[in-house]
Order: sequence, then structure tokens, then C-alpha cells
Amino acid sequence: MLINKLPRYEILSEEAMATLDGGWRRIVSELGIEFQHDQALDHFRAAGQKVEEQTVWLDPDFLLEQVAKAPRQFELQARNPERSVQIGGDAMVFSAVYGCPFVREGSERREATMADFENLVRLAQAFPQLDSPGGTICEPNDTPLDSRHLDMVFALLTLSDKPFMGSVTSGPNAVDTIAMAEMVFGRESLERTPAVISLINVNSPLRYDDRMLSALLEYAKANQALVVTPFLLMGAMSPVSVAATLAQQMAEALAGIALVQLVRPGCPVVFGSFLSNTDMQSGSPSFGTPESATGLLCTGQIARSFGIPWRSGGGLTSSQTPDAQAAYEAMMTMVPTMLAGANFVMHSAGWLESGLVSGYEKFIVDIEILRMLQEQFKPLEISEATLAYGAHEEVGHGGHFLGAVHTLERFRECFYRPLLSSTENYERWKRNGGKDAAMRAGEIWRKTLEEFEAPPLDDGLRAQLSEYVVRRRAELGD
Amino acid sequence: MLINKLPRYEILSEEAMATLDGGWRRIVSELGIEFQHDQALDHFRAAGQKVEEQTVWLDPDFLLEQVAKAPRQFELQARNPERSVQIGGDAMVFSAVYGCPFVREGSERREATMADFENLVRLAQAFPQLDSPGGTICEPNDTPLDSRHLDMVFALLTLSDKPFMGSVTSGPNAVDTIAMAEMVFGRESLERTPAVISLINVNSPLRYDDRMLSALLEYAKANQALVVTPFLLMGAMSPVSVAATLAQQMAEALAGIALVQLVRPGCPVVFGSFLSNTDMQSGSPSFGTPESATGLLCTGQIARSFGIPWRSGGGLTSSQTPDAQAAYEAMMTMVPTMLAGANFVMHSAGWLESGLVSGYEKFIVDIEILRMLQEQFKPLEISEATLAYGAHEEVGHGGHFLGAVHTLERFRECFYRPLLSSTENYERWKRNGGKDAAMRAGEIWRKTLEEFEAPPLDDGLRAQLSEYVVRRRAELGD
Repeated sequence: MLINKLPRYEILSEEAMATLDGGWRRIVSELGIEFQHDQALDHFRAAGQKVEEQTVWLDPDFLLEQVAKAPRQFELQARNPERSVQIGGDAMVFSAVYGCPFVREGSERREATMADFENLVRLAQAFPQLDSPGGTICEPNDTPLDSRHLDMVFALLTLSDKPFMGSVTSGPNAVDTIAMAEMVFGRESLERTPAVISLINVNSPLRYDDRMLSALLEYAKANQALVVTPFLLMGAMSPVSVAATLAQQMAEALAGIALVQLVRPGCPVVFGSFLSNTDMQSGSPSFGTPESATGLLCTGQIARSFGIPWRSGGGLTSSQTPDAQAAYEAMMTMVPTMLAGANFVMHSAGWLESGLVSGYEKFIVDIEILRMLQEQFKPLEISEATLAYGAHEEVGHGGHFLGAVHTLERFRECFYRPLLSSTENYERWKRNGGKDAAMRAGEIWRKTLEEFEAPPLDDGLRAQLSEYVVRRRAELGD
Repeated sequence: MLINKLPRYEILSEEAMATLDGGWRRIVSELGIEFQHDQALDHFRAAGQKVEEQTVWLDPDFLLEQVAKAPRQFELQARNPERSVQIGGDAMVFSAVYGCPFVREGSERREATMADFENLVRLAQAFPQLDSPGGTICEPNDTPLDSRHLDMVFALLTLSDKPFMGSVTSGPNAVDTIAMAEMVFGRESLERTPAVISLINVNSPLRYDDRMLSALLEYAKANQALVVTPFLLMGAMSPVSVAATLAQQMAEALAGIALVQLVRPGCPVVFGSFLSNTDMQSGSPSFGTPESATGLLCTGQIARSFGIPWRSGGGLTSSQTPDAQAAYEAMMTMVPTMLAGANFVMHSAGWLESGLVSGYEKFIVDIEILRMLQEQFKPLEISEATLAYGAHEEVGHGGHFLGAVHTLERFRECFYRPLLSSTENYERWKRNGGKDAAMRAGEIWRKTLEEFEAPPLDDGLRAQLSEYVVRRRAELGD
């Protein structure tokens, strides 16, 4: 977890903020938001909002009253208390890629398996730059669909001791996630301090579907954290305008956050953003674009104005391989993420091919990017001591600092040390095999897995979790 | 030229600025700066500064008085008046890589030739994201050393009509550059508005050498613009401390800028920065590091406090190939360059292998990065029109915006369109050859050269320039 004490980079004027404010108010009150779940509609109806069929017309001020019940920041428990994190304020929490049906390993692209899932959780556990493996780090397509959430939660709870994300594929699957978390954390502790954070995507534009709502309702009842995220690819799920998309994002996110607060006032919730654009030439989604970077900067400023934590960012790219494009697009997303101070960053490592692929080598590229940026976004110490006048006296005009006492006393710690990047001179690099960053990344993730040791876990607890998985799998008919 | 109207990202507190101010004042007044050229020493002596052997102890306030004579911004003429640029204020001017003895083309790394020089100037001319080809875009090693500056200036003046950088390898070479520029611009026009901008590197720490000073003196006499740049790799030319290096950079740059103003008050000058660090494990220079990014942000804030234009940034990297490392390190340099609003950006395209190599494919990677960032750093329009409420009314809940009237009216212009990046889905990408960014970049630069048309040039002027080159080459004995 990074405490980002550097300034936030904000590009919206007060006037722009006021215009956006008018925008979301008009959407929720005149167009309304569709909620495809009776319990959700009942909550809004009981609170006096106008409901017709599945559309809810919302009073903007009522929405803001509900949103104000959400905590400004909250703690998210980890199995290892030292890895618990704060969500909100200056804290930035980084989790791995989420939701990819495929993996890429070197030049091979294939359907993801449970073995891949476990390997990627191990990698997320191994690198301290990640605070969480996330949840569906890839989609384990070789396991039965109805019970795979059990396998995933089991792996997340046993191969990692960092906070994790819950299943949102249905209400019952959310209940399973909560039940397994209770075994680890105890019911009371879990209810007091959330240990599960879950991603609720809006079926944008302006619609929450039944499946996501049923998961939202279960987690909210259990006081577990929710990331309510409009899913906005401009040109597909929103207009081809950043301004219009920001207003829509506010309307959708605030409506869902209000629902969470109606279910359980004070339930920890995160203002989510997933905002990029369609490539209007190919019709494909496009990531790491200038528009998405602008959207990120604006979203941070907007979420702060509502006083709630927010989620966005990551190492997004449309590239098919861990090449130059993958790297510059990941940076196009991750740098604004830092500048805007996102509190919960999904897809921080491994994202490839517009989110269809969890890439092993890309995972390492992203870890290096995180390592660099987490270093850069620390305050710079300017003091008489760091001015190091004595070093200048020591070296003099035209001298060299490499052998200076000042240098020798500090050379181990003075600068960032890369994991993946090479500064080798050409001859040495060539002699060492002339490997590019992707090849070196392959060596790094393999070595990391070889050396991996799972965090300690009580045998009784492991057996209890395992029995739950076996019993529920049988009940689900897999 | 980009007019960057977005906010500057500043991370130094007033207190930090005051500490740095004390730092450079102490260096210039107590340690002094070495100037290895009698004319330079004479200028300082005549102005009442203490000179012993080649060291000048400078009164900080005297320095600031000289610096205040430099223009806050100035125009740099191009052969094509439409390509003239402003240096300073909100303007950001981008020039190509400078000074590389080698080139990389695909998997081949070799000594650069005059043919490479010409090709790279053509590429710099072809892409509107670059305002200038710079100067020594690569070192043409197949031409005679004593006269190669003539060939370079000839190529810069004939294959491009953008502003260019002059030779700084000696005083007489600077005189040749000015003479050739006079043929193109006329003496009066040239003296009124500079058409040559030249890079004067400090032989850091705290030393200006004879060669650079002799070029500085010639250009200053002719009122041509100078970029005075401390050359600072922390751990080699400066202490292993960003704070110490910033103070040293101020001391060195201000001393050189003061000299320019003593030679010719009002001569246009740029506060230069080239600040990165040594990799303390390999002893090699390291680029695109967190420390260099921090240095960039600070330098912008510092240069603005003196009211003069500043230079830094580029697509710097230590990588040997145009791989993921090359891209994320280039972004680690170029994004802070934008955030800090550098006025003159050298090495904006083509830099590879710590500046030893001009890379053809890297050139295209950098052009794509520039295209994206120049788009991102434009103000976002937030208005009732861009809120596009009508588009929401048109599409409704759960609809799709791709076929909406609002989209169809705007789809050509609404989003950034990539040059190099691919958003193709996997099957289509695979069918099209499964090319990564470096391979596609190779196709782009080759096609750009095939389609290149040199900008128009008067035949008489071309002959005059050519005759000058032939005559001077003979005089130089090549």
C-alpha cells in the first residue's frame, strides 16, 4: 500500500465541475436508472423514489444523502494482519488483473486453467508492489462453471494472505464467498471490518442487471466492501464525449452506491471507474488512450468531491503481446492513476489484449512499472543534509563522484534498483544472450514461482475450507 | 508546437525552493565555476567577479541580474515561416534524438552513416509531432570528422524546413553554421530573430570546457539561441542525491547563462537540464528512472522561478532494443516532460541504448507516444453541448451508442487515432502476421521514407550552400 503524499493533478475548473454536476442530476432525475431486481426496486420505492416497471427516477439530493452515509475510508482485513490495507484517503491499494479467459505465456496464447489461476495468485502474493491478488485473476476454464468460484476463493485464501475480491457471478456465489471468509476471519470480525471487496459492474448505459444486483445485495447485507463501477467504453456504452461519459459515470455510480447504503447504511463502498473508448476504425475496445487518461484524472477529482474512495486505473493495453505498445499503453493508464491518487487500483499487473488475456510476461513488466512509480510518488527530501555540499567540496571541478565518500556511504540505497530493466552495455548484453524485456520477464516469473513458498495456514482451517468446497460442489451438481 | 494549457505539476514546497536557492548560491560563491576559455574569464573579470586561474567565484545576485536580461520567451525562425516556433511560456517544442554514434534498424546495430543522418532528418521532417529534427540526429561516421558539420547542416537545411540545431564541436564550426544560416535567412533577419539553437553542455561538475565555450561565444555574438545544459548523471557528475544535483544544476546553468548575457545582453537562452543517474550495480548510466522523473518535475518549477525557457525530457531509455523497457522508460521521461511543461524537448524521438543508438523503430514508437501525449495535454471541453444529453435520450437504458446519430456525426474526429498501436482482435491480428509494435514500426518508417518529398528549396540557394560546403571542406583539408 502506497501512501501517496504528492499533489493530485486536477484539470477540471469549478465551472466544469458545476456543469458535470448538472449533467448527472438531469440523467438520474429525468431518464432514471434501470434496476433489474425486485429487492433493489423495493428499496428505492420504500425510500420514496419514483419507480415504474424497472426504472427508478431518483432525486439527486436524496442520492447524495445516501452517498454521505458511506465511510470516507475504511480498513480491508487480510488473513495476515500485516497485509491489511486502508481504502481511501492518500492510500493507494494495487491488485492484479481480473476476469481474463485466456493467458499468454511466451508466444503461446491459450485458455486459462486452474493451474494458471494458482500460478498467478502466487505471483501476486510474491511481489510486495501488489496489495491484493484481486479475484478472478484469470478464468479457470478447465473447472466446472457452477462451482469454480469455490475453487477460486479457496486458492485466494490459501495461496495468498493478502486481501481478496469476492465472487459476483450470482447471489448464492456471493454467499459462498462470505461463508468461506467467515471461516477465516470469524463472523463478528468480518462484519465489523470487511475482508472481502467485490466488483459490481454496471450494465451501462443506465442499467444494473439481476446477476450483479443479487451479488451486491448479499455483500451489502454482510457489510462487505463493494466497488460500484460503470463499465464505459465510449462509443459503445456511453456517448463519444468524455464530458458526457463523466456525467453518466456519476449518475450510474451514485445510484448504485445509494442502493448499497439503503441496504446497509455505512457499508464500505468505492466509486468505481472503468472508462475507455472504442477504436472507431476497428470497432474494438481501445485501452491506454489519451481519452482514458483524461477520464482518469477527472474521475479522481470528481470522486473526491463526494468524499468517498475511488477505483480505477491499472496497466491497461490493447496490445496482443508484451511489446512496446503494451508498455506505453500501460504507462498511459498507470501514470494518471498515480497522479489522480486512485485508492483501489485493479488490473495493476498482467493485463493484456484489452483484458482478454492474463499475460505472464506482462505481469512482470507491470510489476516493474509499479516499482518505479511507487518510488517516484514519494516526497523528495530537500534539506541541508541532502544538499550534500560536502560532496561537492570533496570532488571539486571536473571530478568524478563514483569513488567519493558521500557516494560510497549511500550507493546501496541511493537510487531505484530495477527488477526487469537492463542498463548493461551492448557488448555485455549481447554476450548474455541479447534478451529483450519480454524474454527476461519470462525468466523472472518462472524463478519467482520456483522459489514460491505459500504463506502459513492452520491445517484445521485448510481442512474446513476444503470440506466446504467439496460439499458445496456436490450440492451444485458438479 | 504544442501550447500546453494544462496545469503544471509542481512538487517542491516554498521551503524546499528556498533550501535549493541557498544551495546554488553557496556553490557559485564558495566553490566557483571553472571556465576553460580566456574570453570567458575576461568577461567575468571585466564584470567584477573574482577570477583565479580558470575558476570564477560568482556573486549570486550578479548572476541573477545577468539572467534577468534573457528574454522570457523568443521566436525561433524556420526556413518555412509556418514552421517557426516559440520557445518559452506555454509552448512546448519537440526535437529528435541528438548525438548517437550508432543506429539500430530491426535487429541490426551498426555505426551510423550520412545516409542514416539523411533518413532520420527526413523522418523528423515527415512527422508533424516533431517541430525540429534537432542537430546531430546521428553521428555520420563515414564522413570526414573535420568537415562533417558542413554535411550535417547542409542536410538539415535542405531535407527539412523546420528549425535546426547548430554545430558545437568548435568555434569555427559554429561560425560555419551561422554562415550557412545567413545564406538562408539573411544576416539582418538572422540577427533579429534566431534561426539556430545550439546545445552547450557543461562538463559537469562545475566546469565549462574550451570547446563548448568557443561555440557558445560565437553563437552568443551572433544572437543565436543557446541551450545551456549541465550534464548530470548522479553518482558520476553529481552527488547521489536529487536535491544536491538540482542545486548543482542551478549553479552551473545560471553561470553559463550569465556568460551568454555578458557576451550579448538579451541573447535568447534556455535553461537546460539533462539529469539522470548511474545504475550503481552496473556503473552504467540509467535513463527513464524514478529519480530522473522527479528531477524533471523539479527543474520545470525551478526554471520558471527564474523566468526563462527550459529544456529537458525526451524518450530516454537504457534499453538496447525497442521493447517494453524502451517504451516504459520513454514514458517515464516523456510524461513528466509534459507535466512540467518543458519548453524545448530534445531526444523526443529515436533515443535508444542510453543515447548511443538512434533507433529507427524506436523513432516510430516515440512518435506514437508524442501523438498520444500531445492529444492528452489539451484542455477538455466540458459544456452543455459536450454533455450530449440528447445522446442519452436517443439510446436509453441498456442500449448501444455505436449506431447513434450523435456517434455517427462525430466518429471520425471524436477519439485519438493511433499510428502504430493495434486494437485488432487476436484472430485478425494473427491473420495479419502477428506483428508486434517493433515490426509494425519498421513498416511505418520504411513507408514514410518511400513517400517522402523534400520541402521546396530555391535552386540558387541550394547551389550557394553546396558551394560553401565544398569550399570549406577543401579549406579544412578533407
